[in-house]
Amino acid sequence: MYNLLKGKKGIIFGALDENSIAWKVAERAHEEGAEFVLTNAPIAMRMGGIKDLAAKTGAEIIPADATSMDDLNNLVEKSMEILGGKIDFVLHSIGMSVNVRKGRHYTDSKYDFTTKGWDVSAVSFHKVMNVLYNKKAMNEWGSIVALTYMAAQRVFPDYNDMADNKAYLESIARSFGYFFGRDHKVRVNTVSQSPTVTTAGSGVKGFDGFLAYAEKMSPLGNATALECADYTISLFSDLTKKVTLQNLFHDGGFSNMGVSDAVMERFTEE
Amino acid sequence: MYNLLKGKKGIIFGALDENSIAWKVAERAHEEGAEFVLTNAPIAMRMGGIKDLAAKTGAEIIPADATSMDDLNNLVEKSMEILGGKIDFVLHSIGMSVNVRKGRHYTDSKYDFTTKGWDVSAVSFHKVMNVLYNKKAMNEWGSIVALTYMAAQRVFPDYNDMADNKAYLESIARSFGYFFGRDHKVRVNTVSQSPTVTTAGSGVKGFDGFLAYAEKMSPLGNATALECADYTISLFSDLTKKVTLQNLFHDGGFSNMGVSDAVMERFTEE
Amino acid sequence: MYNLLKGKKGIIFGALDENSIAWKVAERAHEEGAEFVLTNAPIAMRMGGIKDLAAKTGAEIIPADATSMDDLNNLVEKSMEILGGKIDFVLHSIGMSVNVRKGRHYTDSKYDFTTKGWDVSAVSFHKVMNVLYNKKAMNEWGSIVALTYMAAQRVFPDYNDMADNKAYLESIARSFGYFFGRDHKVRVNTVSQSPTVTTAGSGVKGFDGFLAYAEKMSPLGNATALECADYTISLFSDLTKKVTLQNLFHDGGFSNMGVSDAVMERFTEE
Amino acid sequence: MYNLLKGKKGIIFGALDENSIAWKVAERAHEEGAEFVLTNAPIAMRMGGIKDLAAKTGAEIIPADATSMDDLNNLVEKSMEILGGKIDFVLHSIGMSVNVRKGRHYTDSKYDFTTKGWDVSAVSFHKVMNVLYNKKAMNEWGSIVALTYMAAQRVFPDYNDMADNKAYLESIARSFGYFFGRDHKVRVNTVSQSPTVTTAGSGVKGFDGFLAYAEKMSPLGNATALECADYTISLFSDLTKKVTLQNLFHDGGFSNMGVSDAVMERFTEE
Repeated sequence: MYNLLKGKKGIIFGALDENSIAWKVAERAHEEGAEFVLTNAPIAMRMGGIKDLAAKTGAEIIPADATSMDDLNNLVEKSMEILGGKIDFVLHSIGMSVNVRKGRHYTDSKYDFTTKGWDVSAVSFHKVMNVLYNKKAMNEWGSIVALTYMAAQRVFPDYNDMADNKAYLESIARSFGYFFGRDHKVRVNTVSQSPTVTTAGSGVKGFDGFLAYAEKMSPLGNATALECADYTISLFSDLTKKVTLQNLFHDGGFSNMGVSDAVMERFTEE
Repeated sequence: MYNLLKGKKGIIFGALDENSIAWKVAERAHEEGAEFVLTNAPIAMRMGGIKDLAAKTGAEIIPADATSMDDLNNLVEKSMEILGGKIDFVLHSIGMSVNVRKGRHYTDSKYDFTTKGWDVSAVSFHKVMNVLYNKKAMNEWGSIVALTYMAAQRVFPDYNDMADNKAYLESIARSFGYFFGRDHKVRVNTVSQSPTVTTAGSGVKGFDGFLAYAEKMSPLGNATALECADYTISLFSDLTKKVTLQNLFHDGGFSNMGVSDAVMERFTEE
Repeated sequence: MYNLLKGKKGIIFGALDENSIAWKVAERAHEEGAEFVLTNAPIAMRMGGIKDLAAKTGAEIIPADATSMDDLNNLVEKSMEILGGKIDFVLHSIGMSVNVRKGRHYTDSKYDFTTKGWDVSAVSFHKVMNVLYNKKAMNEWGSIVALTYMAAQRVFPDYNDMADNKAYLESIARSFGYFFGRDHKVRVNTVSQSPTVTTAGSGVKGFDGFLAYAEKMSPLGNATALECADYTISLFSDLTKKVTLQNLFHDGGFSNMGVSDAVMERFTEE
Repeated sequence: MYNLLKGKKGIIFGALDENSIAWKVAERAHEEGAEFVLTNAPIAMRMGGIKDLAAKTGAEIIPADATSMDDLNNLVEKSMEILGGKIDFVLHSIGMSVNVRKGRHYTDSKYDFTTKGWDVSAVSFHKVMNVLYNKKAMNEWGSIVALTYMAAQRVFPDYNDMADNKAYLESIARSFGYFFGRDHKVRVNTVSQSPTVTTAGSGVKGFDGFLAYAEKMSPLGNATALECADYTISLFSDLTKKVTLQNLFHDGGFSNMGVSDAVMERFTEE
């Protein structure tokens, strides 16, 4: 629509199906003139329609387990070959809690599950940046974005160990972002998105009630996946070159609400 | 360059001269296809070259003392007449401490000065929104931005009572932003910018040393006025519709630094 | 009970009646061995039972309008005479919004009211510290505390311009706290307390519903006025000498909650 | 000195030698009338003088690897036997980065090291609370404190993956603190301490220069280990019953400084 990413090359992690935020980012990045590689875990790719997305956006697909340094090395090298140069933008949209999937309450974690979820959801972001940094694979003024959630700052009881994983992820953004900025002029930020009806998000217990609560709390309502994609495009564009180490709330205002009139109504009806 | 603001109408406060961030925002908004009205205090306009800016950007100028409800009512009404409809974006870039100007230390404020600076720097933002809100002068999904500085969160000893004024300003953004979002689907945010060499900024004591410090602390260096304008354009555009009540740091990463290697060098040389 | 304030001398602002947090602080400070002066606005003193409190705690009363530098100068001088030396602790518990009292909505402020409320609720804290600092009236390792509310950070729609006043107050704590720490080894902090049933607090619209909401959101429930007094005692004691420039939440955990199970119940019953 | 912990029973992790903050907490807790068990990793205990501390404070020692659920189950059971009842306070003062020890730069982590450091420094806190919670081993209004560092919020380049570990640790405090508060009326907080000359802290590169920087930045100077112990005592006492889910800065004001005059001097001398 605006040619905001004309000539820019990227790697997009985590497009599973058309509900994924990463899917919307890929569509919007394509509209804005970018070329990119799509990647996902081999197992996730069997389920989703990522091939349709690739066809639609002229992207190639390179499977990669984001916890495997070998896979990530391969991904980054191949991406530079395919795209014909260094990378301008990267989206990390990966998250999964085994404790949640297996129904373990936060007060009764199984620590093997905790470790696996942490590795997939948080450490993978360090590994991705490790490969990009050490291969000098990013162009100057490139932009790296990871998706996160406000459970990193505040308690959402059903979010389980994903809260802690997101806190770790956001810390990685700052810690690695410093070196990436200082040495390669690359910015690193996280986008803290409203609860979103994705295939991943819908696994959380009581999610519908929570969506309604967040909708009522937010003065502009919940942000959709497409709106998140729009915002992410702005962060990949040249309009935001000096924004780095930030955790950016994209949530219709939820994060700075103490209470809304709409939520209070439920407490004054009695 | 991208037509990001094509068809959008705005009001820009605070363009004094070509060093002003508001000046750069006006130039960039013009390039992005916006139409707007420029406004400044009558006294400030005598000094600056705002007429050149108006000529260059096809804008009209309406003088207004931003502490006067009469002036603001006139400004908003005239702007809608001139632009032929409601407003899509507003930039508030106004700040002045009489205590700073008169050389009063923070621990020895003159409270008449304190009140005057607070009214100009902070309450003016409430008054602007008051008029826009009550006249229903903003289009849905419009965007209001005020410029601020991190002294609202942390101590910068020479920033004097501007620190407190900026804290109040940022609170207004949240407080009024709630009602503007809930009732008119308008977003309100503040941009917390790096120290910037503007005519206003250069009045602060020891400013050059401070610029050097901030430059060394920030992994991407200080953000310039032009970069701030680019960022502000992104916040006026349709890419950021669900970002509201936020204080957004545009500072090369300064805000999330504890210390940088470059700063530490000064403490390990001994 | 513990002799935590044995030998310490203080000034306590804002004890109106037995519901006041300042009243409880006075009672607890007395129990902990402190000597202090009680002060309040002349007009407030006519209504309250501050004389009973003075009798009970062996304190003297010095009326002072906290917006008047003359009154504050007199207060501090007299207090040092009465107490026989410099001051160790000060409590600022003063707040009042004329817009709230007169029923003006936040989007329709009367700016004379705004200015008056700001002066009473926020600038008074600067004036108090101005007098204490310039008279060198505080002992080293003294402690100054002001009471605040989380509306300074997040939106509570009915809190009106008190939100902005509290943001300004908290900024003063940091700004003045720097100079007070650097020059006189005095610490300055704010305590951000749960909504509390005080004579002042109960004036806010829909307060009962809000109390119930906060109670359900906080894992430990709302903090009472007496508990706030206990916490304040800890901040006056020698156990917290290096805590300064902080805004300290005393709220049963409310401030770091995104949502609680108890609140969610209201949104899943449908 | 004040009998603040009279009759209270505790468990203190991490007293290695007399430089340890945990060591000082043990000494102060003893002075305040508490009874407690000391624990540390078996390997750490061979090096330190924990037996001297135990003798001095009348404590028993129970070795425990804080990453082992078996060891922690044994520790908590034995502690209740020895102390004759449930626990009132717990200090978690455990942290170690293998990447730091082995000299791996943050941009070149070895992920086995990352996992080990995370397990020891952060997950151990979850495991400790898991055991305490599920055994219902805490008394109502008990208090759990973990020590942390501001690298969880801001970049300190040499802090390496301990920054991310501390972010995870602080998130655990909130996540588990919610359930502990809701179900058992127990509070959970972290204390974010100044850089401190401990045997652990002194391993970090360029630590002396950093101490000097932090000292100059903080209006009250760096907080010592003994002062941190005093503050921790206040958090174990009944004066702070409604403080929970908080990260509490105990740092002489460092955390809210943008820059100090003393730091700026280094940048204006040129």
